Amino acid sequence: MNNDNAACTTRADCEALDLADSLAPARERFLLPDGVVYLDGNSLGPLPAATVARLDSAVRKEWGGGLIRSWNDAEWVTLPQRIGGTIATMLGARIDEIVAADSTSVNIFKLLAGALVLASRQDKPRHVILSERSNFPTDLYIAQGVSAALGGSYPLRLVADDIEAAFDEHVAVALITHVDYRTGRMHDMKRLNAAAKKAGIRIIWDLSHSAGAVPVALNDCDAELAVGCGYKYLNGGPGAPAFLYVAHALQHDFPTPLSGWFGHAAPFDFSAEYVPAPGITRLQCGTPPMLAMIALESGLATFAGLSMSDLRRKSLALSDLFWSLMDASCEEFGFVCVSPHEHASRASQLAFAHDDAHAIMQAIIARGVIGDFRQPNLLRFGFTPLYLRHTDVWDAVNVIRDVMQSGAWKEDRYLQRNIVT
Amino acid sequence: MNNDNAACTTRADCEALDLADSLAPARERFLLPDGVVYLDGNSLGPLPAATVARLDSAVRKEWGGGLIRSWNDAEWVTLPQRIGGTIATMLGARIDEIVAADSTSVNIFKLLAGALVLASRQDKPRHVILSERSNFPTDLYIAQGVSAALGGSYPLRLVADDIEAAFDEHVAVALITHVDYRTGRMHDMKRLNAAAKKAGIRIIWDLSHSAGAVPVALNDCDAELAVGCGYKYLNGGPGAPAFLYVAHALQHDFPTPLSGWFGHAAPFDFSAEYVPAPGITRLQCGTPPMLAMIALESGLATFAGLSMSDLRRKSLALSDLFWSLMDASCEEFGFVCVSPHEHASRASQLAFAHDDAHAIMQAIIARGVIGDFRQPNLLRFGFTPLYLRHTDVWDAVNVIRDVMQSGAWKEDRYLQRNIVT
Repeated sequence: MNNDNAACTTRADCEALDLADSLAPARERFLLPDGVVYLDGNSLGPLPAATVARLDSAVRKEWGGGLIRSWNDAEWVTLPQRIGGTIATMLGARIDEIVAADSTSVNIFKLLAGALVLASRQDKPRHVILSERSNFPTDLYIAQGVSAALGGSYPLRLVADDIEAAFDEHVAVALITHVDYRTGRMHDMKRLNAAAKKAGIRIIWDLSHSAGAVPVALNDCDAELAVGCGYKYLNGGPGAPAFLYVAHALQHDFPTPLSGWFGHAAPFDFSAEYVPAPGITRLQCGTPPMLAMIALESGLATFAGLSMSDLRRKSLALSDLFWSLMDASCEEFGFVCVSPHEHASRASQLAFAHDDAHAIMQAIIARGVIGDFRQPNLLRFGFTPLYLRHTDVWDAVNVIRDVMQSGAWKEDRYLQRNIVT
Repeated sequence: MNNDNAACTTRADCEALDLADSLAPARERFLLPDGVVYLDGNSLGPLPAATVARLDSAVRKEWGGGLIRSWNDAEWVTLPQRIGGTIATMLGARIDEIVAADSTSVNIFKLLAGALVLASRQDKPRHVILSERSNFPTDLYIAQGVSAALGGSYPLRLVADDIEAAFDEHVAVALITHVDYRTGRMHDMKRLNAAAKKAGIRIIWDLSHSAGAVPVALNDCDAELAVGCGYKYLNGGPGAPAFLYVAHALQHDFPTPLSGWFGHAAPFDFSAEYVPAPGITRLQCGTPPMLAMIALESGLATFAGLSMSDLRRKSLALSDLFWSLMDASCEEFGFVCVSPHEHASRASQLAFAHDDAHAIMQAIIARGVIGDFRQPNLLRFGFTPLYLRHTDVWDAVNVIRDVMQSGAWKEDRYLQRNIVT
């Protein structure tokens, strides 16, 4: 790699970069365990320091003291919309175009089923769901389930690459993940949206590995529909609520097959007839999980006052540094980086292929460098500029080299396979 | 009301009952605010004392310290099944017939869509969804949404009363709430299941106001499908995860339209093809909300070591006492109890009709007696034997009488309408 970090050949060089880093103080916003370099914020964001007290207060005062009254008095009832507004600001959307709700999987179902209903109402109905074989599995599973639920008449077509080439007059909806969960490859959202519009196709963007990781400009890119995850870069806690985006133009008539009472225009009228709320609120379903919502709100606050372009710059600098150090000091061990070189098409993570990826990852995790393994042979590392230092990157590569040089990864305990999320 | 409490005519009588109450120590399992009589545990269960420390530990140690490793090391990944097992034990089901997941609304969708797919595969396909007009609105909304999602071919038929009389050869699924959310009227589950079986109909039971409130024997009653709520009598916290039940006999082929990755047979293989997990696990969808799950697990522990028959006895005693005291001291104010007299058909709550119900409820809430208002004219009171005392009931009725005698409920601030959940 040729980049600004090429000159970073000692740990002292990294220390100098940390000292000059205007984002360095943001690390104090997190409680990170000693002795850990956490390169898995792309899978589960770490604990924000403020979340401990915020949740404790929510539990004791709002739930314990306020009891049922807190739905009004602590404004629980509008929290999903307020969280949505904060996320919208991060993603270049209007504040009433995003709401926090349910899981990413459930939200994909909502948007996909809704978009298919819209497509079936067209003069020339379309039925095909298009996606990439490399998409995150739950996206594909949900698409398969939608087909089954709607009677099997919505075939799922998967392409290996160049999804744009598969845009044709049969495709109703393209379900596209903006950033590949394995390689970090990033699509050009604006270009694909334009091509899809021309082809009469709606794209549902999955922003799970984008939100909080890279600049996203939903309105500017003419995005219509999107979902995303709260527990990765947004630091909302394990299994945090997800979010979904429906552009203004589509909100009014958007069908809501998961028509629960929190999406009703007047839920506390308790009428027997479902009447969807006028805006993004209709995309809510059941009673929102308040403790999880409050943790997500607190997670979003870790971004307060920071610019996404600064974060992006540091994220790329950390990734480039990691890659260049791996090239310099681990070349002999057979790692092959499968992430894109070009900044324009790479998000905030890197993946290295290696035949012994699983065992190597277990061995480095045991030494406090936490990335994760992804099938079939990938070591995956996320670079989250809010709390990672250049020295962390240096130390992580050093641990990897030590594990490889010593052959420590060959121990039995690392060769065993366990569930890893 | 003629019952054991008829002799309870002074506060001292109530104190004597509390002293003799073997369940009285269970109150220590909760953190209840001073000066409050909480008669709304049927809407949001209060904070269990153990939940404060349990959640704090989950946040600091499991999330903060363990980070992504806690999915394995803290056994997050199997918590929804373990919680399901605990709920199953309470509800007379096998431990692998219930799993905690999503919201009640989402779970109704899963079971309803799945049951309709099964019904459409029969030699003589059936399409009608049957329910009661008085059912909790989200049940009806979801049924309307399912119809829309599946192409409008699943009409929802609503009856005013005697749902059994509407069992006919067109009905595929009956969506029945065991305990009416307004009146507390309880259906005979065993009898309706037998009648439904005879008529070739599947019943989906909504146990939201039953679980933790009344004895339920799912297996003994030949129940096939059920959902329920975690944030009411189960004390799981605001918007806690819900649960669902699928009897062994149905699990193997049960269709899962919400086919997310946590319902996959091998989610961490990341294969592109959806293969449902063999048992109840297939009814999960996305990544479960772990903090909310942990709070629910802690809520369930408030029942540890207590027998549901003891709880039921006290719940009825408290309800009877409230009713008899209302009769004795508030007769002149025009309250009409709309809950069933007979214990066999009444759960753990009472509802009183009154033209000024909303304002009266606001006035008594302001005095620390927390029930809730339900449309169109009901004051609703839940009687949760884990933490309510006979003296609480006495004090609550006294407050109601004071509010009525003084006319305090006529103040402007009580006459205004706000959202009340």
